[in-house]
Amino acid sequence: MGSPLAEGVLKQDVRAAARLMRRLDDQQPDAEQALRELYPHTGRAWILGITGSPGAGKSTLTSRLIGKFREQGKTVGVVAIDPTSPFSGGAILGDRIRMQAFEGDPGVFIRSCATRGAMGGLSRSTSNVVRVLDAFGKDVIIIETVGVGQDEVEIVSAAHSTIVVTVPGMGDDIQAIKAGILEIADVFVVNKADRDGADRTVRDLQIMLEMNLNHDIPWRPPIVKTVAAKGDGLDELVEKLEAHHAFLRQSDRIAKFNRERIRREMLDALRSRLLDAAAATIDAEGGMDKLIDDVDGGKVDPFSLAESLSGKILAK
Amino acid sequence: MGSPLAEGVLKQDVRAAARLMRRLDDQQPDAEQALRELYPHTGRAWILGITGSPGAGKSTLTSRLIGKFREQGKTVGVVAIDPTSPFSGGAILGDRIRMQAFEGDPGVFIRSCATRGAMGGLSRSTSNVVRVLDAFGKDVIIIETVGVGQDEVEIVSAAHSTIVVTVPGMGDDIQAIKAGILEIADVFVVNKADRDGADRTVRDLQIMLEMNLNHDIPWRPPIVKTVAAKGDGLDELVEKLEAHHAFLRQSDRIAKFNRERIRREMLDALRSRLLDAAAATIDAEGGMDKLIDDVDGGKVDPFSLAESLSGKILAK
Repeated sequence: MGSPLAEGVLKQDVRAAARLMRRLDDQQPDAEQALRELYPHTGRAWILGITGSPGAGKSTLTSRLIGKFREQGKTVGVVAIDPTSPFSGGAILGDRIRMQAFEGDPGVFIRSCATRGAMGGLSRSTSNVVRVLDAFGKDVIIIETVGVGQDEVEIVSAAHSTIVVTVPGMGDDIQAIKAGILEIADVFVVNKADRDGADRTVRDLQIMLEMNLNHDIPWRPPIVKTVAAKGDGLDELVEKLEAHHAFLRQSDRIAKFNRERIRREMLDALRSRLLDAAAATIDAEGGMDKLIDDVDGGKVDPFSLAESLSGKILAK
Repeated sequence: MGSPLAEGVLKQDVRAAARLMRRLDDQQPDAEQALRELYPHTGRAWILGITGSPGAGKSTLTSRLIGKFREQGKTVGVVAIDPTSPFSGGAILGDRIRMQAFEGDPGVFIRSCATRGAMGGLSRSTSNVVRVLDAFGKDVIIIETVGVGQDEVEIVSAAHSTIVVTVPGMGDDIQAIKAGILEIADVFVVNKADRDGADRTVRDLQIMLEMNLNHDIPWRPPIVKTVAAKGDGLDELVEKLEAHHAFLRQSDRIAKFNRERIRREMLDALRSRLLDAAAATIDAEGGMDKLIDDVDGGKVDPFSLAESLSGKILAK
């Protein structure tokens, strides 16, 4: 153990953790060294994912869940995934402000991930933050998405227990669930369940689940009605989540989960190294603008150019 | 010119085009050679993007647009992007079925892209299909997304003219637009405009546009009300789209657009070559399962493993 950043995280120094997360995003070598040193100290946290359409009340639900876990004496880390944040206006900022209820609580650590740019950047950034929170000793880590993009769904589905949130009266929303996120839900939440149509939404979800039930997995995703703004249904939600966690631990699913997590982290790290090498070669060839000039001027097509660059980047 | 696939496409042979698209998805060398040969024959098509929430009526709008362009005597290619299709049920299939109205029309070519898997696979697959349709001689190419994931938004925003579709009464939907896709819209459509609240939605959009107007770009995205199911508002929509196209051609934006397209295609092709090399090295090291065993057993952490693999993959 030599890294002061890693030592700081293990001593539960909040500033060291925040600094390490920032430096990991900037791909600083000392941060990557710290992550390696922290690695053996991770694997203990319970990782929850929360996804669903914009406006479904995910942030309110997340802050209620934080409250419940804090009542149980558990410490909580939150990763808010917001890949679109360079564009985002007041709405998302408002969501974040609600979280400030926990600002003075040392048992809660909240971090936003908004890395755009390189493919896989968001996934890598998120799993790094989760690892750091895990090493820090957080009992529960909640990954909350702002939207329901494919990247975000993939990241959230990598949680131990994934909550998919919908609201009454969004027929289209159910369609969206059908199209992409039905299979990743371990627990469904129908939030704003004091609105008209809540029971109908529950029934629609039930029918969809019946039709799509995977009989190889002996877990039937429960559907919980909540009114997150009032705190209604939160006890039942926590109970169902804990039942899912118990189910994971009983079976060998935790082991499978850990292997998948290793695979993803390794590939994200590898991909980022390959892309760095590509960027360096493009620079050495005169930079992207010059290469585009060559194609634009008819000297070469983009596909032949990619082949010649890969010949310079790769070992053989 | 040696590739029979490329020759077939230039002769407007539909089967050759479909076969080339399939073989490009499978990364067959003969297909990649054909794409290189076709490259100088591309750059003529007008590329439209259509995105918006599930249920906003994008498919109906797309088929109405096809009808309008066909009335003008233009040929049309459609790329339907559906990254979640492995999960998808009846809803999306239903959308596709509506397109069958054009099945007997040789002036219309429809292709779905659903490549998951490797990062960037969807973008690469889409731009390949667009290039083939372009070389084939289609006057207009419409890229339609099923969802509004980040990947899809990025792909659609690469069109010459991008339509963002919303429907009345979706306050949350407007939030979603705010959060991510406001800046990519060249034309807004409020579809299902015979529903209550259409004018309010238009007004909300107008306010949002005022607040976010980029004064560096002398194009103010118009808002068009449509009832795609009845064909209402389609003439106005086509007119606004054509105005945007004229705007692009007057300014130097078409040139910028072409450079961006070259950059993206080159990087997608390069990325795919690098990932192939990574896969080959992982196989040579005993395969992914064995590598995960090493990490799982505590021999190495995922980040050090990525570094050692990249040392074998890269030239230096």
